[in-house]
Amino acid sequence: MAFSALDSALTGPLFATADMAAVFSERATVAAMLRVEAALADGLARAGLAPEGLAAAIAAIDPAGLDTAELGRATALAGVPVIPFVKAIEARLPPDLAPFFHLGATSQDIADTVLSLQMEQALLTLLPDLIATLDGLCGLAERHAQTPCAGRTYGQHAATVTFGYKVAVWASGIAGVATDWQLVFDRVRSLALDGPVGTRSGWGEHADTVTDTACEVLELSGSSVAWHTRRARRAEVAWWLALLLGALGKMATDVVHLASTEVSEVAEPHVAGRGGSSAMPHKHNPIGATVILAAASAAKGHVVTMLDAMSAAHERPAGAWHAEWHALPQLFGLASGALREARALAEGLVVDTARMAANLEMTRGLLYADRAAAALAPRFGRAAAHAVVERAAEAVRSGAVSLGDALASDPGLAGAEAMLAAAFDPAPALAAAAARCAQATQSVRAFTVDFLRNCPT
Amino acid sequence: MAFSALDSALTGPLFATADMAAVFSERATVAAMLRVEAALADGLARAGLAPEGLAAAIAAIDPAGLDTAELGRATALAGVPVIPFVKAIEARLPPDLAPFFHLGATSQDIADTVLSLQMEQALLTLLPDLIATLDGLCGLAERHAQTPCAGRTYGQHAATVTFGYKVAVWASGIAGVATDWQLVFDRVRSLALDGPVGTRSGWGEHADTVTDTACEVLELSGSSVAWHTRRARRAEVAWWLALLLGALGKMATDVVHLASTEVSEVAEPHVAGRGGSSAMPHKHNPIGATVILAAASAAKGHVVTMLDAMSAAHERPAGAWHAEWHALPQLFGLASGALREARALAEGLVVDTARMAANLEMTRGLLYADRAAAALAPRFGRAAAHAVVERAAEAVRSGAVSLGDALASDPGLAGAEAMLAAAFDPAPALAAAAARCAQATQSVRAFTVDFLRNCPT
Amino acid sequence: MAFSALDSALTGPLFATADMAAVFSERATVAAMLRVEAALADGLARAGLAPEGLAAAIAAIDPAGLDTAELGRATALAGVPVIPFVKAIEARLPPDLAPFFHLGATSQDIADTVLSLQMEQALLTLLPDLIATLDGLCGLAERHAQTPCAGRTYGQHAATVTFGYKVAVWASGIAGVATDWQLVFDRVRSLALDGPVGTRSGWGEHADTVTDTACEVLELSGSSVAWHTRRARRAEVAWWLALLLGALGKMATDVVHLASTEVSEVAEPHVAGRGGSSAMPHKHNPIGATVILAAASAAKGHVVTMLDAMSAAHERPAGAWHAEWHALPQLFGLASGALREARALAEGLVVDTARMAANLEMTRGLLYADRAAAALAPRFGRAAAHAVVERAAEAVRSGAVSLGDALASDPGLAGAEAMLAAAFDPAPALAAAAARCAQATQSVRAFTVDFLRNCPT
Amino acid sequence: MAFSALDSALTGPLFATADMAAVFSERATVAAMLRVEAALADGLARAGLAPEGLAAAIAAIDPAGLDTAELGRATALAGVPVIPFVKAIEARLPPDLAPFFHLGATSQDIADTVLSLQMEQALLTLLPDLIATLDGLCGLAERHAQTPCAGRTYGQHAATVTFGYKVAVWASGIAGVATDWQLVFDRVRSLALDGPVGTRSGWGEHADTVTDTACEVLELSGSSVAWHTRRARRAEVAWWLALLLGALGKMATDVVHLASTEVSEVAEPHVAGRGGSSAMPHKHNPIGATVILAAASAAKGHVVTMLDAMSAAHERPAGAWHAEWHALPQLFGLASGALREARALAEGLVVDTARMAANLEMTRGLLYADRAAAALAPRFGRAAAHAVVERAAEAVRSGAVSLGDALASDPGLAGAEAMLAAAFDPAPALAAAAARCAQATQSVRAFTVDFLRNCPT
Repeated sequence: MAFSALDSALTGPLFATADMAAVFSERATVAAMLRVEAALADGLARAGLAPEGLAAAIAAIDPAGLDTAELGRATALAGVPVIPFVKAIEARLPPDLAPFFHLGATSQDIADTVLSLQMEQALLTLLPDLIATLDGLCGLAERHAQTPCAGRTYGQHAATVTFGYKVAVWASGIAGVATDWQLVFDRVRSLALDGPVGTRSGWGEHADTVTDTACEVLELSGSSVAWHTRRARRAEVAWWLALLLGALGKMATDVVHLASTEVSEVAEPHVAGRGGSSAMPHKHNPIGATVILAAASAAKGHVVTMLDAMSAAHERPAGAWHAEWHALPQLFGLASGALREARALAEGLVVDTARMAANLEMTRGLLYADRAAAALAPRFGRAAAHAVVERAAEAVRSGAVSLGDALASDPGLAGAEAMLAAAFDPAPALAAAAARCAQATQSVRAFTVDFLRNCPT
Repeated sequence: MAFSALDSALTGPLFATADMAAVFSERATVAAMLRVEAALADGLARAGLAPEGLAAAIAAIDPAGLDTAELGRATALAGVPVIPFVKAIEARLPPDLAPFFHLGATSQDIADTVLSLQMEQALLTLLPDLIATLDGLCGLAERHAQTPCAGRTYGQHAATVTFGYKVAVWASGIAGVATDWQLVFDRVRSLALDGPVGTRSGWGEHADTVTDTACEVLELSGSSVAWHTRRARRAEVAWWLALLLGALGKMATDVVHLASTEVSEVAEPHVAGRGGSSAMPHKHNPIGATVILAAASAAKGHVVTMLDAMSAAHERPAGAWHAEWHALPQLFGLASGALREARALAEGLVVDTARMAANLEMTRGLLYADRAAAALAPRFGRAAAHAVVERAAEAVRSGAVSLGDALASDPGLAGAEAMLAAAFDPAPALAAAAARCAQATQSVRAFTVDFLRNCPT
Repeated sequence: MAFSALDSALTGPLFATADMAAVFSERATVAAMLRVEAALADGLARAGLAPEGLAAAIAAIDPAGLDTAELGRATALAGVPVIPFVKAIEARLPPDLAPFFHLGATSQDIADTVLSLQMEQALLTLLPDLIATLDGLCGLAERHAQTPCAGRTYGQHAATVTFGYKVAVWASGIAGVATDWQLVFDRVRSLALDGPVGTRSGWGEHADTVTDTACEVLELSGSSVAWHTRRARRAEVAWWLALLLGALGKMATDVVHLASTEVSEVAEPHVAGRGGSSAMPHKHNPIGATVILAAASAAKGHVVTMLDAMSAAHERPAGAWHAEWHALPQLFGLASGALREARALAEGLVVDTARMAANLEMTRGLLYADRAAAALAPRFGRAAAHAVVERAAEAVRSGAVSLGDALASDPGLAGAEAMLAAAFDPAPALAAAAARCAQATQSVRAFTVDFLRNCPT
Repeated sequence: MAFSALDSALTGPLFATADMAAVFSERATVAAMLRVEAALADGLARAGLAPEGLAAAIAAIDPAGLDTAELGRATALAGVPVIPFVKAIEARLPPDLAPFFHLGATSQDIADTVLSLQMEQALLTLLPDLIATLDGLCGLAERHAQTPCAGRTYGQHAATVTFGYKVAVWASGIAGVATDWQLVFDRVRSLALDGPVGTRSGWGEHADTVTDTACEVLELSGSSVAWHTRRARRAEVAWWLALLLGALGKMATDVVHLASTEVSEVAEPHVAGRGGSSAMPHKHNPIGATVILAAASAAKGHVVTMLDAMSAAHERPAGAWHAEWHALPQLFGLASGALREARALAEGLVVDTARMAANLEMTRGLLYADRAAAALAPRFGRAAAHAVVERAAEAVRSGAVSLGDALASDPGLAGAEAMLAAAFDPAPALAAAAARCAQATQSVRAFTVDFLRNCPT
């Protein structure tokens, strides 16, 4: 089956990584269900509410022995996979242990804690590509800290920057989101074991013992009240992934443009067979950026669904909770593929510095219009200076004259030659960009170093 | 793999139908790719651009013989599954035919036309449940055209309606969307075979012959210009599905409330094992409504992604097109499961008319406040009448008195007894609701009859 | 106050037209409320439920005499502006008429019908710019039907098209949405006058008389059941506007790219003072495209809100209905500004055909790679031909050689010179593009001519 | 003008607070523009790039003296309000100062920093209602920590909780979002002063002096690289507001249901004239919840637009940035109105404990089914226990028997009387709920106390 392009055998490998697919596989899901039930059994045993052997008996069950297709058919009836799962496990447990299985818990407890564990694993799975992307971009930025490149606003050359500066903006954007990885990770690692209506009433005075034990076993944190209908923590994982994809999408947007034929300042890493066309043998399509942009677009939609799920009525809603299942795992799939591609771009982007330099010449000095106007402002007033340069710029655009020559031939500017000469010196703009590039990469590197020092893996 | 709950073995059967899963299976996708390429080959042959035998040779290839996992791995490199597919088929064709395979076409031609065919099939797959839902609701409405039931606004009893009237509103809402099924179906059935940049240049003066033939073979319509970057027709399928899920969601919202413990006016059809709880043996959860509401929520997100995909740059975009793959098939999956559940509700909703009648008594006449005020208005003025009834209503709410008694004991209303008596007669409200119910069901029935007469299957 | 950029004195004139602002002004809203109440009064009078003079008395009330700020303060208490409005009008009517004012109606009746009237007016307000945009684009396409221009896929030159063809795709995309204007217009023009719970019970057996009369007076259509909680018709207006903005956004996306410094094939119409920068005197920013793209982006969000509003509980929901007010009028505002800008682009886009021609030369023949491979396929096999051209393309990209020369010097292609010569002839590609351009513009022109013939104004 | 219901004189007071409207008024916007330019002037002066008197001269300009309508008309031409603003201010400054005005800055610098200042103010404006809501809810939870109330899942009674517990879940949900107020506040308070392409090149080696001074004057933080096209920080403010509205929406969803006629366990605070109907004098509509739910719905849409804005090309995008203006201020408006209503609910919700108790009796013991099954499990096995209770529950639902009686009469349960007796004791469930309520409110109170101790105001 393949309703999702992430799950399709034909397109899944393009859009998601195999590692991430493994995290959310049915096998992994069932294994996690057993793990959560075993942790509950540990808690029950410690509280004296179940026999000691229950957890071990649960742990001994091989997830591969459960027929997921059969569970699925039963889920279509029951409404939640935990219900047939519980029945299937009870049938496998010795009669003296079975009655204590799942004691005091509710379906959502298991489903939500399983998702916590999967998201924990999924966030860790994203880390290597995330850190490598930042490292790759910092290296790229540093190598091109001084490489002149056009700064573009509204699609048009605005003033000179350096390519390293542009890359530093990408890196900073991604790092700005990565900053919250730890926050999201810590919040995700949360036990949701609270019983049918969230009050843990099935365990009576032993409730703390039960859930503290489960927290300990699963290495999750507890909470002062049930998560069943407080869904902000779920939604914010989705948000973080969408934000990450947004930051990667900014880079991808720029890469597609920089790789376009007329600009040709970068190309995606050359990999045999990549980016070709079924029809056009000369094409070198930016497939990495394509995967990222498609993921960013899909993520926007899933975020809506997650926000929608927040209006969870009373102690468990009809539908709002289930809607999360349609969105959250896919967001991790999308992020996995996009980060893999981002890393490849960060580590292998092909940069054509000669083309960058050539492109800077295209506007025959217009990039200095800003500084020319500023240089003239003190003498002529800002508005007049702006107007005279705007006029000269018009001449540049309509003819083949350069801005320097157009201004030099303006009789009204007689005596301003020295001012203007300084204005056309590219050094200050480059120095400014290089300085910002350095500040930014230092900041990103400080973050990654610090991050890796405290890293959970 | 299971990023999508629709694709998971554990949850897929709950959220989507097997028929719909078959439409979007990898096998069906590959078969449709072959079908489109064969239609192109027919066109090429008729135009004299390829040998006659090509189409038959393509048609003779067994889709099951293609290794979808291998195609998927190659797609991860190529960026589009059509590229490895074309290579794989060429390798299977005789050397004298292979060079003409896929001639003049581009990847998007194949992918988009395949999706047209799948959506055509998918829309047909939805039809039986859609029509049965409308029929079921009309029958339900007609049976309860006269069954008194509380009309509720802002969650509160407002005035008397009939249960049939409520159901007629559901049916009308769904029928109002179903009305556009034909429009969407006709628009979906569109060939997208236009070549690398959409101009059909590979076929020169024979372009019309090639595409007209393909249209004929595939029973699709042609268009005056390429669809590659005109995506409104794609987006509007998504929209129609989301709108349908919205209309089903309105019904499901009402069902969840009517089935709630305090209201208990309806219950979902009793099916052994359905709607139970892993913890609470007495629960009878509205699983059908849950599936529908979750689908409606997920659909909102996918619509955003489809709208996003409209900003398709130039002749083919990097990412915007691919984003559609993350959204469109899932919308059909969601709709298939939701309609299956809607049909079950329409055909089997358990109605407790006694409870409806009892609930109407809960407010001790407040439901007539509206008409009491209207009845008094001609004599006392609308504002004064409104105020006096509001005061009496306050007395009803704070005590155990009925509105009739409260008004009867108001000395200011002496002489208005006859007016009031008429106001408390339930007949007019029931008659009004029954009349609207009849008009609405007639209209819906007229639509379905007319629809089935012209039905594509 | 200015929470919305459309309402702000500072930015409103940039993003919306004054005509559209007038449609949704408070004054217009109050005037429409009076108009709807007067139509109801006409219906009541004809049914014998109210005195003849009521409608005239309502019509005689000057909307300017109502204090909207005071009504607003009262709305904060009442929850709906219709409630204080009804009180204010009653106070202005003669005592013998006041009791019959608003008889049998509910707040939502008035608010919804007012919005119907405003949307009717708003859709008409969009028409001149919509038709002029299509006409302008058709003219532009026709003038440049033969103008060679690069076809671009994934941001890269793919094959030659003509600029007219590109414009024809824009026009077709917009026309494809415009096609549904009439459908949306007809559906919007709908009376929503159904009483407190939608059953029209307040008018008893005279209900048809009352609503038929109101339909006649307001020139709106009736319906077989209340609209109160069937919101698809509202949502689809939003959808149509979002789709329109999506189609305009596709054009704007292309314009921003074509106007970018490296491409420079088009420029937005030169208007003194437009598109400048506060800092950079040489900038000529594509402001029109900017307004369109911002509108398309905002529209995506509003569509989510409108879909959300469909889950309207029972006979009137708490919140879902009101959410529409946060979205629907703004969508019209956004569309008004975007269409004004689209029209300006369609009528005044500055096209640099020389630059288009020069850009086509940038890739030194790579644009013919497609056709070269196709030409060689019959002799060498498609895969081999594709490979040899891919290899030559690589040589072109790394050196200064042209594709023609690279292939000519390939010893393996000896004897294929004639085949190749034909492949490098630009004429077929241009002819194919021109043909599609002609078909598309004819289709769009046929639509607009037909549309204007049947036009409501 | 009133495209937004927040800006309309008729509906604005219902949906937003006057305080918040003042923050985003045109007057406040212009004043903030002057403030940012004055801070820049301070920086320029300290760096020796402008005369000392510039800042004072700017500060002396009365924002009320600027014609916002005229600025708006000029913005329609220029594309950004900062451009005509800069011209207007230059015209008001002495000729010796004017040339230094806005030196080295770009429009986005001013617009973005102005929005930072407005958002800072807006976040502070939300605080009193946010804290009061949490305090009010904690008090409500504490007062009802022991008040028996039905726990509901899927709309159905599931097991007993206490009303205080329910309220504690609301409070915890809102507090969970409020936790990040400080994070968002700190991030929002950021200077965005980086010059035309973000490199601060206009100030050369003095760039740090200029921006450090501006940070100091405006009490904002600096950053290591420009924000112009790193928009995650903007998007996350939107997200936080949407999340807050989602948490408030959860409470509102519950309130609407609890206030519904059949449940009637709570009512919104009685305020004369609030929640009435134009037609139905007896209605007491939950207007506060309505405002909240409509806001939550609209917020979902705006979040999409903000995510969309992240794909900001190069150094400044055409449209993506402007899209934020359509979304961000409205989110604050929506939040202001929703929080005002949430506070009113928290402080004044009318609770009917008798009705809560009565509702608990409705299911004749079914609420204990969970515990009855658990009690029987050790002896009969969990599955068998579940089945026997399910059967008894069916008897309860179809007849008038209570669950206790149904089980007592089951011959298979002979000897299990003592087990069952304990199961029907309400005390454990109440104790469990009360304990969780206490834990949750302590946690929320600890947060608010801690928050207020460190509060920025």
